[in-house]
Amino acid sequence: MKNRINLKDFNSAKDRRKTLEKELGIGLSSISHSSFTEDQVKNKNIENLIGATQIPLGIAGPLKIAGKFAQGSYYLPLATTEGALVASVSRGCKAVSLGKNFTVVVEDSGMTRGAVFKVGGLHSAQEFVSWLKANFTFLKKIAEQTSRHLVLQKIETENLGKSVFVRFVFQTADAMGMNMVTKAVSEIAKTIYQKKKINCLSLAGNFDIDKKPAWLNFIKGRGKKVRAEVTLSSQIVNEVLKTTPSHIQEVSYHKLFLGSALSGSLGFNAHYANIIAALFAATGQDLAHITEGSLGITTTEITGQDLYLSIYLPNLVIGTVGGGTSLPAQKDALKILGIPDPKLAEGEQVLKFAEILAGAVLAGEISLLGALAANDLVKAHERLGRGKR
Amino acid sequence: MKNRINLKDFNSAKDRRKTLEKELGIGLSSISHSSFTEDQVKNKNIENLIGATQIPLGIAGPLKIAGKFAQGSYYLPLATTEGALVASVSRGCKAVSLGKNFTVVVEDSGMTRGAVFKVGGLHSAQEFVSWLKANFTFLKKIAEQTSRHLVLQKIETENLGKSVFVRFVFQTADAMGMNMVTKAVSEIAKTIYQKKKINCLSLAGNFDIDKKPAWLNFIKGRGKKVRAEVTLSSQIVNEVLKTTPSHIQEVSYHKLFLGSALSGSLGFNAHYANIIAALFAATGQDLAHITEGSLGITTTEITGQDLYLSIYLPNLVIGTVGGGTSLPAQKDALKILGIPDPKLAEGEQVLKFAEILAGAVLAGEISLLGALAANDLVKAHERLGRGKR
Amino acid sequence: MKNRINLKDFNSAKDRRKTLEKELGIGLSSISHSSFTEDQVKNKNIENLIGATQIPLGIAGPLKIAGKFAQGSYYLPLATTEGALVASVSRGCKAVSLGKNFTVVVEDSGMTRGAVFKVGGLHSAQEFVSWLKANFTFLKKIAEQTSRHLVLQKIETENLGKSVFVRFVFQTADAMGMNMVTKAVSEIAKTIYQKKKINCLSLAGNFDIDKKPAWLNFIKGRGKKVRAEVTLSSQIVNEVLKTTPSHIQEVSYHKLFLGSALSGSLGFNAHYANIIAALFAATGQDLAHITEGSLGITTTEITGQDLYLSIYLPNLVIGTVGGGTSLPAQKDALKILGIPDPKLAEGEQVLKFAEILAGAVLAGEISLLGALAANDLVKAHERLGRGKR
Amino acid sequence: MKNRINLKDFNSAKDRRKTLEKELGIGLSSISHSSFTEDQVKNKNIENLIGATQIPLGIAGPLKIAGKFAQGSYYLPLATTEGALVASVSRGCKAVSLGKNFTVVVEDSGMTRGAVFKVGGLHSAQEFVSWLKANFTFLKKIAEQTSRHLVLQKIETENLGKSVFVRFVFQTADAMGMNMVTKAVSEIAKTIYQKKKINCLSLAGNFDIDKKPAWLNFIKGRGKKVRAEVTLSSQIVNEVLKTTPSHIQEVSYHKLFLGSALSGSLGFNAHYANIIAALFAATGQDLAHITEGSLGITTTEITGQDLYLSIYLPNLVIGTVGGGTSLPAQKDALKILGIPDPKLAEGEQVLKFAEILAGAVLAGEISLLGALAANDLVKAHERLGRGKR
Repeated sequence: MKNRINLKDFNSAKDRRKTLEKELGIGLSSISHSSFTEDQVKNKNIENLIGATQIPLGIAGPLKIAGKFAQGSYYLPLATTEGALVASVSRGCKAVSLGKNFTVVVEDSGMTRGAVFKVGGLHSAQEFVSWLKANFTFLKKIAEQTSRHLVLQKIETENLGKSVFVRFVFQTADAMGMNMVTKAVSEIAKTIYQKKKINCLSLAGNFDIDKKPAWLNFIKGRGKKVRAEVTLSSQIVNEVLKTTPSHIQEVSYHKLFLGSALSGSLGFNAHYANIIAALFAATGQDLAHITEGSLGITTTEITGQDLYLSIYLPNLVIGTVGGGTSLPAQKDALKILGIPDPKLAEGEQVLKFAEILAGAVLAGEISLLGALAANDLVKAHERLGRGKR
Repeated sequence: MKNRINLKDFNSAKDRRKTLEKELGIGLSSISHSSFTEDQVKNKNIENLIGATQIPLGIAGPLKIAGKFAQGSYYLPLATTEGALVASVSRGCKAVSLGKNFTVVVEDSGMTRGAVFKVGGLHSAQEFVSWLKANFTFLKKIAEQTSRHLVLQKIETENLGKSVFVRFVFQTADAMGMNMVTKAVSEIAKTIYQKKKINCLSLAGNFDIDKKPAWLNFIKGRGKKVRAEVTLSSQIVNEVLKTTPSHIQEVSYHKLFLGSALSGSLGFNAHYANIIAALFAATGQDLAHITEGSLGITTTEITGQDLYLSIYLPNLVIGTVGGGTSLPAQKDALKILGIPDPKLAEGEQVLKFAEILAGAVLAGEISLLGALAANDLVKAHERLGRGKR
Repeated sequence: MKNRINLKDFNSAKDRRKTLEKELGIGLSSISHSSFTEDQVKNKNIENLIGATQIPLGIAGPLKIAGKFAQGSYYLPLATTEGALVASVSRGCKAVSLGKNFTVVVEDSGMTRGAVFKVGGLHSAQEFVSWLKANFTFLKKIAEQTSRHLVLQKIETENLGKSVFVRFVFQTADAMGMNMVTKAVSEIAKTIYQKKKINCLSLAGNFDIDKKPAWLNFIKGRGKKVRAEVTLSSQIVNEVLKTTPSHIQEVSYHKLFLGSALSGSLGFNAHYANIIAALFAATGQDLAHITEGSLGITTTEITGQDLYLSIYLPNLVIGTVGGGTSLPAQKDALKILGIPDPKLAEGEQVLKFAEILAGAVLAGEISLLGALAANDLVKAHERLGRGKR
Repeated sequence: MKNRINLKDFNSAKDRRKTLEKELGIGLSSISHSSFTEDQVKNKNIENLIGATQIPLGIAGPLKIAGKFAQGSYYLPLATTEGALVASVSRGCKAVSLGKNFTVVVEDSGMTRGAVFKVGGLHSAQEFVSWLKANFTFLKKIAEQTSRHLVLQKIETENLGKSVFVRFVFQTADAMGMNMVTKAVSEIAKTIYQKKKINCLSLAGNFDIDKKPAWLNFIKGRGKKVRAEVTLSSQIVNEVLKTTPSHIQEVSYHKLFLGSALSGSLGFNAHYANIIAALFAATGQDLAHITEGSLGITTTEITGQDLYLSIYLPNLVIGTVGGGTSLPAQKDALKILGIPDPKLAEGEQVLKFAEILAGAVLAGEISLLGALAANDLVKAHERLGRGKR
């Protein structure tokens, strides 16, 4: 290792790449293409840049959405390397578009940072929790001075022995907001230390909880909480999905409920993560948050001759500004979704994005549940053999 | 929507992109760059191609690994848009490289498909389960005829009322293997229907369980199970991480145990998902599997004056052939890791990859735990403000 | 079966018992002893009475508690058939009593009933949720008319497709309160139907959630949330527990954190359920609520030469009036705890009881963790062979 | 406290009780009745005996069971203080008895003890795990020498850093077996220390996992795994339960699936814990194991005009010898169930008991689901007001 070169010492991606090629005796021409410049990303999105990974971008849809913010027909940019996904979502979009009462609903649960503080014991903890409540307005002011985009909504606490976990919940406008929230909580922690001599053991105490699947976020929500629903007639189910409402209902009951329960899962759905991953990669979201996008519950029921489906994702961590969303290709994908939308105010862009995500996930669920239900065993081999899942 | 153009009707990514640009009145030049050709990806990785998403690729390391398969010093290609991640992993690599007894260990738990079958009731279920056991060799032969890379290892069952969930566990050589496993299970299901007139309700019954965080996979493993460990002297902790073993130990206990337990999490770690996401994106893994890469437990303990750390990821779903791994930029990233390695046999390439992932995750954990522990409140603002997590 | 006698037709426990003896050809003299009369229990606690089960009652302690309501030295009545439990808790009481800063803290999270209502879809759900918020005072009045002991504290909602889950949170004075809360929610549901034509599918929709271990209650609390702590010098640990603070700390880290995490547990503790079960049986609690009493987290840390321990039970469902608490033997056990306490107001009796439970659980945890830590292998056989876990 | 008397110093329950009465200034006559003698319980079931808690015992059923071991019509002894439970289970028994294809099935998952051992690191862990496998027969012999009732079935391991968790799975004949298993594992641990110098940190490492709700046991089973099913015609549902199959199906979907999923529960059932608690108390089971009896999944489906229901409890920890089962009143309750059954061999008594438990739980589920479904809002108040849940 001593003879390994420190790639930090080089000034450009090209130099690093060339050095790496030479040292390892390999060619790296395929990562040398990029639509962004080094200046656009260094010290913001990445360090030690050597090039760009390229992920195929396909288009699904269109999907006609009548949301509060997303209103119109949307093509869905999906970055994926998994064959059949784009086609499957497209098929779902077709079914949804032909369905009745397709609805999307988005709630903003806020972005959280859950710090852990150390106190002397249970009584000190009670006193500290009381102080936090009494000083909410004061702490809110301190937090909000760190960014004009931040609003501190509430403070939630839990106490275990000598530790007090404090979950700060913020609105962060169109940004995913993890960084600005951390900065604000850091300021709050400094203030707490000054006023109370109570030390913050860790600004991030897994009480946020970030990038881990967890019931806390499933139950309380984190980021956006999205829902969508549609009713499909048996004719649509038959023509588009080649199956029947009752077959889908039966698959749904066994897979989404019984299978998930037996598995101890936090995802009672068919494949949210696939659609979330493809849309996240396309639009510059933090890919580690795909984790949370896999949580949630799909419901189905037969109403008369129709099939009703709904999806629910309680923990969708997204943004339309900041992070990877400002890179050129990712911006192109957002443009396809009509984001930024000049008709919308700050803070509404991300809600529009969430509504489209909800529609896309609904389409994806319908298509896969239909495919599984249609799978009479004679044809299964051929159909699934070339497809996926 | 009726006036929306069906993008499937076009023959090339360029045509689709151009049509989209025209219809939406936007420019999409940034997604037009790509290192792959349409022929390389269509009907394999994507449908309705319109271009490529580009993610900055940085390099961390080197990390000197003495694994069973990964032996030598490795640079880590990380595709991310989240600033500070590459730098943080690099810092962790430095600490690990200076540490004692850095070890990586990989187990192959196999790839699973968990189908659900419908029987007449509890007694029929018992009979069916017995039949599956008695006919294991027969079913194994049928499954393995679908691919020379497949080995059926075992069949696990569970019965709820009239449904029997059957989890088929395969070795899939260097491939992630979901598609080939599904094809094999489809053949098994056809055979079962022929022999027993027992219908497969769904080939994928969430008893795999795929792309959802779940205790079944945490407990039994799915894909690769990886572990790594290192011992850091207090001097290294001090010089590289600017803190002390006992500070890290205290953060670890409160964040990884108490915070995660309070949150009902399946991730008792600092940020596995960040490192997994960046390595997965760089190397062409299925990004939806980042979900499972977030599961696991980091342990720390003080031994004398030293700090011992270990990581454990029970559910790492990866491959080094197939899917996105065959794309040019993704191949470049694998080349940086020395994969494929001419010295290794089939089935060992992916184990080498798993060992490197284990090392990278260990480095990432150390660096973030160190950063959180070092966070004296006076400097927290400045340091974290420009960084992240 | 047709020749089986219907035991409902008999007028007294004695008649039923005699008939059963005759029909089954067995003697049932041991269940014929009872300190309660049939009139005391029939139509209130039980139907088809045939006698009484008798559980040995032992006494542990005393434990000196300086709570908000429990102030003094308390003997603990434990009904159990598991040898060594009373002795173990007694040993823990001794350690706690010799320790420093023994503290108990109780919070009242309220008793909940989570009903599920059926609406037309997501928009109707939103409208319904808004209506519930807007009409909180109105609904509160309706609920509180059903009992003078009830206070409706808040209404929490969640929406999945066409269903709206509504969790009503009440204060129930000294009663456990499940019955009175159900009655109140039934009245609310009738009102909702009258005003909104929204039907309640099930008054109990597993969103309470009652008598099942669940993260909802772990995170939000249900019933009483109790905590306790104590600091033990190394001398006490040595003399009473025959081990050292660091041994206990090591067992604690491995068992309560690593073992529980690996097991996917909601109990990160040594054996809360043992102490809860014995105190619940002695004092007439609903034994099905032992389930929830097994949830929670024990923390330990070394402070200087001392060992600090804390316990946390977020979901303790208890009462001091109603249900089994009014039976003679159960009343005797409560009397041993000084309950009812003439110095306390209504609603405070149950908090006193919760404080004593907290202290007892802390004692039990200390004793078992000590026993496990002290377990040098030579003596393990003899000691554990006659003991228990 | 110094003036508190040490109750250990007294020779009899009566002396202790008298002393307590005097010291506390209370009467304790109601706990003085008991069907057991002090000699029967001391040093086996309890220490510091002061008397007996008495729980009303009611009788439900009869329930006609055609199990492998339980064959005939059984009355169910239920010890409870919760009004309406006995009546509710009786109603369920009536429905089940009128239904078609009532089936019970029991599997023995074995009793476990999960110890944690300390090794030098990951490589030592691998070596230790290999040694355990290679020496299975040797360790089995050591374990089985501690009791003629024990059979060591398998050893399961997991490794986190320097700790190796080892789960020993035993058959324990008719005993619940926790004590004998602990003794055997203690012997194994001594042997391991002698042979390998590997120290057992804790014989009970929460990898058993005992008396805590956990996915490990849900997935792998612990104790007995029981299932039951029945099909009810719409006429029976109407006449006995006063509702329809589709109403029950709708309640089941919303409560058992959606409500439980939203709550993050390990119990996807209506109220297993109620029936388990009452049967456990009556028959002398360890009441702390009610915790695990709350786990499991109830399924329902409409088949033609009929309603099919099944129950599944994966973690039922029970015995028919040892512990509280040898006390007089508890023996009477077992006698009512025809246990011990002279026609059955050792090891089959407990399976018979498990079959009856399964039937009782099925009856309880049917009755409560029916009650919830029948709950038209006009009558809800009156009906539930005097009942429970």
